[in-house]
Parts: sequence; structure tokens; C-alpha cells
Amino acid sequence: MPGPLNGIVVVDLTRVLAGPFCTMLLADLGAEVIKIERPDGGDDSRAFGPFVQGESAYFMSINRGKKSATLNLKHPQGKELLQALVAKADILVENFKPGVMDRLGLGYAALSALNPRLIYAASSGFGQTGPYSDRPAYDLIIQGMGGLMSITGPDARHPTKVGSSIADIFAGVFTTIGILAALHARAKTGRGQLVDVGMLDCMAAILENAVARYVATGTDPQPIGNRHPSIAPFATFTTADGAINLAIGNDELWKKFCGLVGAPALADDPRYATNPLRVQHWADLEIDLNKILAGRTTAAWLELFQAKGIPSGPINSISQVLADAHILARQMLVEVSHPTAGPMKIPGVPIKLSATPAEVLGPAPLLGQHNAEIWGARLGRSPEAIATLKSQGVI
Amino acid sequence: MPGPLNGIVVVDLTRVLAGPFCTMLLADLGAEVIKIERPDGGDDSRAFGPFVQGESAYFMSINRGKKSATLNLKHPQGKELLQALVAKADILVENFKPGVMDRLGLGYAALSALNPRLIYAASSGFGQTGPYSDRPAYDLIIQGMGGLMSITGPDARHPTKVGSSIADIFAGVFTTIGILAALHARAKTGRGQLVDVGMLDCMAAILENAVARYVATGTDPQPIGNRHPSIAPFATFTTADGAINLAIGNDELWKKFCGLVGAPALADDPRYATNPLRVQHWADLEIDLNKILAGRTTAAWLELFQAKGIPSGPINSISQVLADAHILARQMLVEVSHPTAGPMKIPGVPIKLSATPAEVLGPAPLLGQHNAEIWGARLGRSPEAIATLKSQGVI
Repeated sequence: MPGPLNGIVVVDLTRVLAGPFCTMLLADLGAEVIKIERPDGGDDSRAFGPFVQGESAYFMSINRGKKSATLNLKHPQGKELLQALVAKADILVENFKPGVMDRLGLGYAALSALNPRLIYAASSGFGQTGPYSDRPAYDLIIQGMGGLMSITGPDARHPTKVGSSIADIFAGVFTTIGILAALHARAKTGRGQLVDVGMLDCMAAILENAVARYVATGTDPQPIGNRHPSIAPFATFTTADGAINLAIGNDELWKKFCGLVGAPALADDPRYATNPLRVQHWADLEIDLNKILAGRTTAAWLELFQAKGIPSGPINSISQVLADAHILARQMLVEVSHPTAGPMKIPGVPIKLSATPAEVLGPAPLLGQHNAEIWGARLGRSPEAIATLKSQGVI
Repeated sequence: MPGPLNGIVVVDLTRVLAGPFCTMLLADLGAEVIKIERPDGGDDSRAFGPFVQGESAYFMSINRGKKSATLNLKHPQGKELLQALVAKADILVENFKPGVMDRLGLGYAALSALNPRLIYAASSGFGQTGPYSDRPAYDLIIQGMGGLMSITGPDARHPTKVGSSIADIFAGVFTTIGILAALHARAKTGRGQLVDVGMLDCMAAILENAVARYVATGTDPQPIGNRHPSIAPFATFTTADGAINLAIGNDELWKKFCGLVGAPALADDPRYATNPLRVQHWADLEIDLNKILAGRTTAAWLELFQAKGIPSGPINSISQVLADAHILARQMLVEVSHPTAGPMKIPGVPIKLSATPAEVLGPAPLLGQHNAEIWGARLGRSPEAIATLKSQGVI
């Protein structure tokens, strides 16, 4: 059974991460994604290392299942080809700086006039409006401006960036939600619309209880490492060979835990009798528990805790995640066969649909791999015309 | 103009975060979300502090725009009422541990038989299948198991949790994508389906280039603080009164930067002549730049850098984010008037739709605030019957 977006055609002008992450999800969901790339090198991320047989591992992972056609959007014939493609498409996604598409004569107003059913999604650093809209955006800058760094890290002197490009990725997923909502609206109204998503807005939307805390108390939340602000012990501890996460949310679990780790005296310690007391005496509690937990390996503790129902978990490295039995059982690591890089493992799709499953449909395309299919079979250009377009630098 | 999901009815059995974040987005997009809560206290997060006039700020922020009806799902009459509600609904969302709904006789198979058009979304820690599916899940545990902590933080000895509950939130947004994709499929097939999303899967899906790097090189990526692995200077630096993020991605910007900060000698320093050399000599470069940047305040540097096009940004606290001119211009902070807590500011919607705008439609409901509307007007129970249901603990 094909995916839920089977039959939907996406013209994909995106580069690097936020936009490509969105169109990756659309492709996984069954849409036909036609990635339009500059003839001279294509998506910038094709040049991001490390490489497998000369192909960027990064590019290959987030462009799986898409088609690639080259096009010079600044060339008059390039514009014409894009317009012809958009006339028959359902969705266009771009992540240029605001104004770029308008200056090319290919902005929302122009393309919507050509195809009123078109859903035009623009994913950018700051969105299409507002005082910062023309600024360049980088994930680090947005994580800092958006408040997430101010609540991540060991303490207030060390604001910390999330290790993956979370601002880009959130922009990608929120853009996807906007597109799918607009598809639903189009089924009723017959018309497309503009979907405008900015990375900074997305950061403000995912701060979660930090905003609620500030609004309620007037005090800025600070980074507090890995511990929970109001539950203890709910944090990361040191073991004989690494670290372990524990999430002991109530007094009953606490007593059980103390018995299991051979420290029944802690259960009777008046400093630790209730959760509020354990939070109050966290500095002492952390020292006491690190002493105990240093006595065995992470694996040994986890075996004990899992068997006895103590919420706990390892801090897995990337290789451990990718080898994890559950991750494999959930098909969260899949293999694709790339035309030049060969077989390659990439992350699977975290959305499991029972009737119209989403799935990784194939490898990432080579630059311009689908030129004949898109400009020839789809738009009716002859092999000779395509050769001329190529020699003129249009495609 | 109403939102894109206007007319869609959502039965919302979710509690705390991942599920409620999903149904919050559905409500923002215009769906009618009927939050079903336990008569004795409702959603656990109603008890999470801090409170405003006795109401949880946390609960209020992620349950805006929903209706609340109480229901005891273990009571035979409670099951009947839920079935009656589901029979006329489009979507059901739950985030119980797998198996709970089946044991109540209200699982996907049972409810789908009652209403084949129903889209049944289950958001859980580990998903509905796989070896860990019956384990309890907490955001900290999932961030650790999912690899994100292993690439976040200053170094390998200090794996760091993201300050907001990113594993829950990603599960919420991916569940939303699954639901919207299933709605699109239903328009063609006439049938709903099961949407199964696990928090751990979502973590594996957003590791981004960490997975690509591991697959290409066989080496586990490590936390490297706030700097970029292959671009320098692209990191956080210390200023006279705090910190600043700089993202200097090429040699031209580097030379310009050195002139602006009054350190032209650095531009000529052979250790820093090219980006690869700057990455190689990062330890020296960081010391040199921290010395220079300590000479002015963050605001003074930002004014200079913004004026001259050096990509840079502050590390905003939550209060600074919420007061930011761009955030306000983008309506990313909105005010709702809560029946007991009064006027309250909450985050806005990061998905800007031109024709059918998503928006915060109102405050969070009081527990059971819409009982008369849902059980009375919608399902036809008389005021007397509702009073009896209440006295029997069914609602």
C-alpha cells in the first residue's frame, strides 16, 4: 500500500537542513518530491563531509527518496521550466531568505496566480515578516536567541547548544504540519495558501514549562544540568564505567530503590523521607547516590533496575542507539542502496501508520539524476531540447 | 476565517505532555478538541506547579483552546459515553502505555469497528510494538537512550539533557504529522487508521548528522560544546557581561570580523588563515577571541556585528525571548483570559497560514467545564441524567 501522500507532487527548492528535512518527511509519507538543484554543484550540503565513495553521508540521509532535477532559476528558460512544473504541482517548498523568490519573479503571489491550488511553504530563519526577517540564520544563533540555550547545560555560566540542529529540524517538522493542514483546507476550499514558518518562532513554541514558569513567577529559569526541578532523584549519576539516568518519581519507588542498591539506611534518612525533602537536600543526595552507583557498571545496574521496575536508562552513544534491539525492531534504521555510495544505513520513519505506511522509499538522488524524467517525460522537452538546455547552463 | 481543521472533532485522552502538545496543535489549527479527563483531578499536569490563582501555568499553556469533559473510563457507563463520542469523531489521541486501551475494551480494533473513519493516534514512550513497548518512559530516560545526550554538552564526560522536554515534544509533533497524513489518506479511502508514534523512535529520527557521521566513519560523535565540528569561529564566546554566539562561515567574513574587533593582526596570523586552519587551531583561537570579546558588552558587540553583517546573536533568557521585538511582531506571545487565573501570556503558534490561520483559540478549560455541552447538548443526556452520572462518579 502506498503512503498517505501518494499522488501529491512536491517541487522542492530547499537546501541544507530545515527545508530538506520537511521534504524528506513528505517523501517518506509517499509524496513525489522533485528536488530542484543548481546545475553547478546542487544543494550546498552535497559538499558537507564525511563522504562515502565521494557522496556526502549527510546529504544522503536527509534527501532519501527524492528525485533530483537541475535548474538555473536565474535563467529566463529556467524560470519557465519552474513555472511549468509548478503549474501541475500540489506543493512548493523553499527555504531561501525572504524576498529571494519574489526577486526571481517566483514568489508566492506569482506562482499562486499560475496555480491557485498550490500550497507554497516558506521555511526560513525568522519567517517572512517581522524586524529580523532579512537576517541570515544559523542553528546556533537561533538556539541562542530562542532561549533554549539559556535553559540547557550545567549552570547559568554555561548555556549549552543542543548537539543536533534542533532549530532547523523543528522548523522542518512545523513546516510539514503547516503543509498537511493546508492540504486538508484545500480539499474544502479548492485553493492553496502560503505556509510561513520561522526557526526562531519554533524555538519559542517548544520551550515548554520554562515559559509557564517565567510567566507564573517572573523569574528566569536557569540551566540545572540533567536533574528535574521538582522531583528527586531524577537525574544522571556516575557508575563504575559511565553514567545512568534514574527517574524515581515517588516515595514508594524511592524506598524500593534504596533496598535494591543495598542502602536501606537512606530510606530512613530524615533528609530524604519525602520528595520535597529530597529536592531540598539534592546536593547531599547526589553525593550519596554517586558513591553507591559508582560500585557497579551501568549495564549491571540497568539489569537490576529493569527487572525490578525502577525507571532507568543508559546514555547511549550513537552506535549504541543504532544497534539497540528496540530501535531495530521498530525499523528505525533502514538500509538503502545508493547508486555510487552503495548500501547505506539511514534513520527510519518515526511515524508508523497502519493502513498507508510511511517508509524510506529509496536512496538520495545524484545531482540531476532525474532530468530526463522531469524535463523530458513530464514537461515534454525532447532529448535535443534537453541537451541544449544543458549546454546553455539552464539545467 | 476559521483554521484549516475547522469541523474536525478530536477525542483527546492524553495527559501531561506528548499527547497534549499534539492536541494543542490540532486545536490551534482549528479542530474541536474534547479533552476527556478523570473525574478525580483530571490530567496529572493540573497539579504541576507553579500555579496562577491555583491553576497550573504548565497545564494552561499546553491545553489552551480545548474543551474539558470528565469521564471514568473504567465505569461501564463511562465506556458507553466514550464509544458514543468516538462514533461521531474524526480523531482519537491517547498516550497511555500500550495495552491500557485494549484492556479497557477501547483499543484501536474495538473503536475502529465502531467508527471505521476514526483516526486513532497512540503516542507513547516506545511505541505499540518492540521489546521495550511496555516500559514506562520519561523524557530524561528517552533523551539518554536515544543518543541526544551523548552529543550534547561540553565534553564526553558530561552528557547533557536538553532543557525542555524535547523527546515528549517531538513525539507530539510527529504524532500530529501522522494524524494529518492519515486525514489526507482518509479523504481518498474513506477509512481511518492507527497512528503509532514512540518517543524513542523520534529521538533516533532527529540526530541529524550524528548518524551520518557515525555511519560514514564508524566513530561515535562526542559532545563538543557549542562549537561547530568543521567551521571556526562558529561558537559561543564570553563578553564583558555575558556571552555571544558567532557564526563566521568563510575567510572573507573572518577578515572583516578581525578588522571590526580591532584585531587586524589575527587576520594575518598564519594559524588562522583558512577555515581548516582555524578549526585545527581552535584551542588557540578560542583563547584569543575570548580575550578580545571580553572587552565589550554583548549588546555593544551585537550592535556592531548586526550593522556590519557578521552573523551573531545573543543568548537570550526566557524573559528576553518573550520581550523580543521580533517574537512579539510574529505573535509568538499571545494573551488568553482564563476563567479563574485571569489574563495570561502563553506561546503563540509557529505555523503561519495565509488563508486559514492557525491561532490560539482561547484559554485552557477548567476540569469538566464542558460536561453539559458534551454529554448534554452533544450526546443528548438530560440534565437529570448528567446529575446522576456525576453522583455515580461516571463523569
